[in-house]
Amino acid sequence: MVSLTLHPMKEIKIVVQGEHAKFITDLLDRVGATGYTIINNVSGKGQHGFHEGHLLFNDISSQVIVFTVVPEERVEPILAGLGPLFNKHSGAMFVTDVAVSRREHFVAK
Amino acid sequence: MVSLTLHPMKEIKIVVQGEHAKFITDLLDRVGATGYTIINNVSGKGQHGFHEGHLLFNDISSQVIVFTVVPEERVEPILAGLGPLFNKHSGAMFVTDVAVSRREHFVAK
Amino acid sequence: MVSLTLHPMKEIKIVVQGEHAKFITDLLDRVGATGYTIINNVSGKGQHGFHEGHLLFNDISSQVIVFTVVPEERVEPILAGLGPLFNKHSGAMFVTDVAVSRREHFVAK
Repeated sequence: MVSLTLHPMKEIKIVVQGEHAKFITDLLDRVGATGYTIINNVSGKGQHGFHEGHLLFNDISSQVIVFTVVPEERVEPILAGLGPLFNKHSGAMFVTDVAVSRREHFVAK
Repeated sequence: MVSLTLHPMKEIKIVVQGEHAKFITDLLDRVGATGYTIINNVSGKGQHGFHEGHLLFNDISSQVIVFTVVPEERVEPILAGLGPLFNKHSGAMFVTDVAVSRREHFVAK
Repeated sequence: MVSLTLHPMKEIKIVVQGEHAKFITDLLDRVGATGYTIINNVSGKGQHGFHEGHLLFNDISSQVIVFTVVPEERVEPILAGLGPLFNKHSGAMFVTDVAVSRREHFVAK
């Protein structure tokens, strides 16, 4: 049976250059995210400096969106883990309140 | 004229294996969602058991995200309708508060 | 250093026919959005009238999702700027509360 109860969680979307997708998924595995979804080959434009100069196609470059849902206490480790990447490369992380029906699927054992 | 008033609605994202996309869109039609958007060929990883064993590509498999926006009272029928699918197959549903400008486009007649 | 503080912003998702993507990105540039991400070639279905009659593939047509994050005061100019498009063509705009770690990347200078 699928329960009709919804549980609060945090949705995280991380937008990075495609070449950094593995850094993100390795980080998510390490901090105990139980799953993620990757939207490939999205295009994006950032502010001056956002893509740090190696811009192609009139400031438009190929990116990926990595989407995951985690309990609130995992947000800070993910954000901290992004530090080394974001200090050197473009990218952004967005956190949204979300509700899920099957809480046990999002909590690492 | 497009009104500048924003109305609260619920955004629903459903992530399933591509082969189950039609199950989802049929369900959305049946419960009176007035539209949806499908992001095809996303890749995803779930926890052990989440993809029920027929895993390919190192636990990475092809999925779709079906995205819709509905009035709050449609959330439970959608969640209930997902039961038969989620009891047998992998997938997840996420509910987020969202605001829209043209409420009439999201309410079935 | 990446700060661990999260700042409230507004996430905007705009779904339009692919041919109108440039209208959207020009609008976002004009109102001072500092970046955006485009998910191409998504498919969608709208209610009767939503796609104004030139429907293909059983009411399914090719769309894009343009995703941006802005300070709250930018939401109304974006919504107002969509008026001329939404008065004639299909499309929808969704606004969600979101938090970001690097606020300065989302505020136009």
